[in-house]
Amino acid sequence: MTSKEKEAAQGKIAQLGKKLVADIEKGTNPSIEVPVRSLSNISFDTKAKTLVLGDKKARRFFFNIGHVRKFVQTLEIAKITKTLLNAGKHASLRDVYYMAKRTIPQTSINIVDEQSETDNAIEDLELITDLSREQLHMNANKMGSVAGKVTIEDKGDTSDWGKLGSGGWSIPSNVEEIEFKKVTGQYVIYMEKAAVWERLHEDKFWEKQNCIIMSSQGQTTRGVRRLLQRLHTEHKLPVYVLTDFDSYGIYIYSVLKFGSIGLAHMAESLAIPDVRFLGITADDINNYDLKRHFIKMKDVDIARLKQIADYDWFKSNKAWQRQFKMMKDFGSKVEIQALSSKGITFISDSYLPEKIRKKDFID
Amino acid sequence: MTSKEKEAAQGKIAQLGKKLVADIEKGTNPSIEVPVRSLSNISFDTKAKTLVLGDKKARRFFFNIGHVRKFVQTLEIAKITKTLLNAGKHASLRDVYYMAKRTIPQTSINIVDEQSETDNAIEDLELITDLSREQLHMNANKMGSVAGKVTIEDKGDTSDWGKLGSGGWSIPSNVEEIEFKKVTGQYVIYMEKAAVWERLHEDKFWEKQNCIIMSSQGQTTRGVRRLLQRLHTEHKLPVYVLTDFDSYGIYIYSVLKFGSIGLAHMAESLAIPDVRFLGITADDINNYDLKRHFIKMKDVDIARLKQIADYDWFKSNKAWQRQFKMMKDFGSKVEIQALSSKGITFISDSYLPEKIRKKDFID
Repeated sequence: MTSKEKEAAQGKIAQLGKKLVADIEKGTNPSIEVPVRSLSNISFDTKAKTLVLGDKKARRFFFNIGHVRKFVQTLEIAKITKTLLNAGKHASLRDVYYMAKRTIPQTSINIVDEQSETDNAIEDLELITDLSREQLHMNANKMGSVAGKVTIEDKGDTSDWGKLGSGGWSIPSNVEEIEFKKVTGQYVIYMEKAAVWERLHEDKFWEKQNCIIMSSQGQTTRGVRRLLQRLHTEHKLPVYVLTDFDSYGIYIYSVLKFGSIGLAHMAESLAIPDVRFLGITADDINNYDLKRHFIKMKDVDIARLKQIADYDWFKSNKAWQRQFKMMKDFGSKVEIQALSSKGITFISDSYLPEKIRKKDFID
Repeated sequence: MTSKEKEAAQGKIAQLGKKLVADIEKGTNPSIEVPVRSLSNISFDTKAKTLVLGDKKARRFFFNIGHVRKFVQTLEIAKITKTLLNAGKHASLRDVYYMAKRTIPQTSINIVDEQSETDNAIEDLELITDLSREQLHMNANKMGSVAGKVTIEDKGDTSDWGKLGSGGWSIPSNVEEIEFKKVTGQYVIYMEKAAVWERLHEDKFWEKQNCIIMSSQGQTTRGVRRLLQRLHTEHKLPVYVLTDFDSYGIYIYSVLKFGSIGLAHMAESLAIPDVRFLGITADDINNYDLKRHFIKMKDVDIARLKQIADYDWFKSNKAWQRQFKMMKDFGSKVEIQALSSKGITFISDSYLPEKIRKKDFID
């Protein structure tokens, strides 16, 4: 975040405060306008190809017994943001909760009781200010590793993602302030499993294929999503996604590509509509003889698959509907690591180079 | 792992093979002797202050319908180890499972059906060869970050843990082969939460205090445990543990200090008997006015606390019994992040420096 961006963020917080002071001076009931974040206000934008928030807005008043709690919580978060921005410090969502949690003097009422309340207030403030929580200096969880042909500058340190031994660079929760100094990798592979990342890293995959490898573990964190998105938009790098062949893996891809339902208001700064699905596909299972590694789907997996197949953004996509049908017919899922049954380095030496050369992706 | 260590590992695998060939040539029933890993053979060594495995051994025979499956699985893992060592490659536990999983020709019997079978066979092979799974080139999960005053050499790359920006070095699953080139930090703080690590890192805690900060997320991985242990034994660095004040946090400390029940046979290479508990303690809660951040313990938390208090290694420890009693009386737990209620950088500027200066630890 440059000092100019920081000033812009401080300006937006000040603007909110000034608006409320003006309300008070005019003698009107102080109010804040907040876009509605419920499912009823979320749709799939077929042009932008991401989830988007609609125009519905709600107005919260201070003198309204049903509104005042959220009103005060939003202001409390604005205050914490101001403190953080001024101090040049960041805080985790849990920290923010504890910073907000206190009892209003002469009462037994706490400003917040649960972290869900501060999390909600943070999301509201994102919408009010049109700034991400990272820009507001509030961070989600840290997770994930990256290696490959990129050199960055961050907090005065220059690090080459290709020269960090077996561990790689640990991805921070907030990547807004890192600067890309040199990017010679030609694409990024994002994989859901750290163990697969270690496989590719040991095999020097990124060196041989001139690329970048990135993973978190399970759910993709915001830090990872933003890092992928920045590499994609600022350096035009294609992003390929490698997951298990199961509904969970497909949802990881869906979130990266279209945005998540919970963060639809952030889709613009987090979704990467050009992301491509590399595998494991139903066709891979046939082509690479992986049926003997089928893991039977549970009822909950089948229900989740049906749900995903019905999402607006998958509904009219023939290639994906074909995959979903094949998964349903298999009644089974297959893990990435099943490729190890064909040899330790099969994934690095054969599977990935072949798939990428043939451009065998699903969009 | 030096080439000498690799040769030693290969030698031990060869030894196992030769023993079996000798059995066959003598016309005796081929057998493998395996130390028993059940709780009945685990005790707390009051001298070494770690969990240890007793002397009980079991002999597994090839021509024994009750033994043959495990016998073959152990040999299969030995074969995979040999392949990995020869190729100079490592595999994750899940990879190893898929490498072992196949059907015996002309039968419908699989060598293994579940990963628990290969995991068990790997632990048996650790005992048979007296080598850790890492030395056998089999890796557990990758997780965690480190920053601070250490420079390492790893896979031909030199990295300074103090010059990696906001992310830090991502800790690999296997740290056997890294070399410490320069260690000027005076101690290591290990914390259970990545968010707390980011707090300390942003505050330049390790720079100001001349130390090393390390975290994983939740359960401590083997890579993290070995890295802490290597810094402790090879560089005599004290290791301090920072967790929430709850039974889960205390168990994290317990595993680091005494070893885990599941891996008692590995206690020697994983436990750090000198590790000290830094916080959050019951006294911190009183001294730093954290009672207002109490989170009520659930029945399951209380049951777990009772279980931990009854462990041999805590039973006669008065300082810990006092903590357990206070936790029980509080009926509540407190998170590390509750310190944030006292100011963003309170943990870095006041709490930790004070505690460390006063040597306010629990052993």
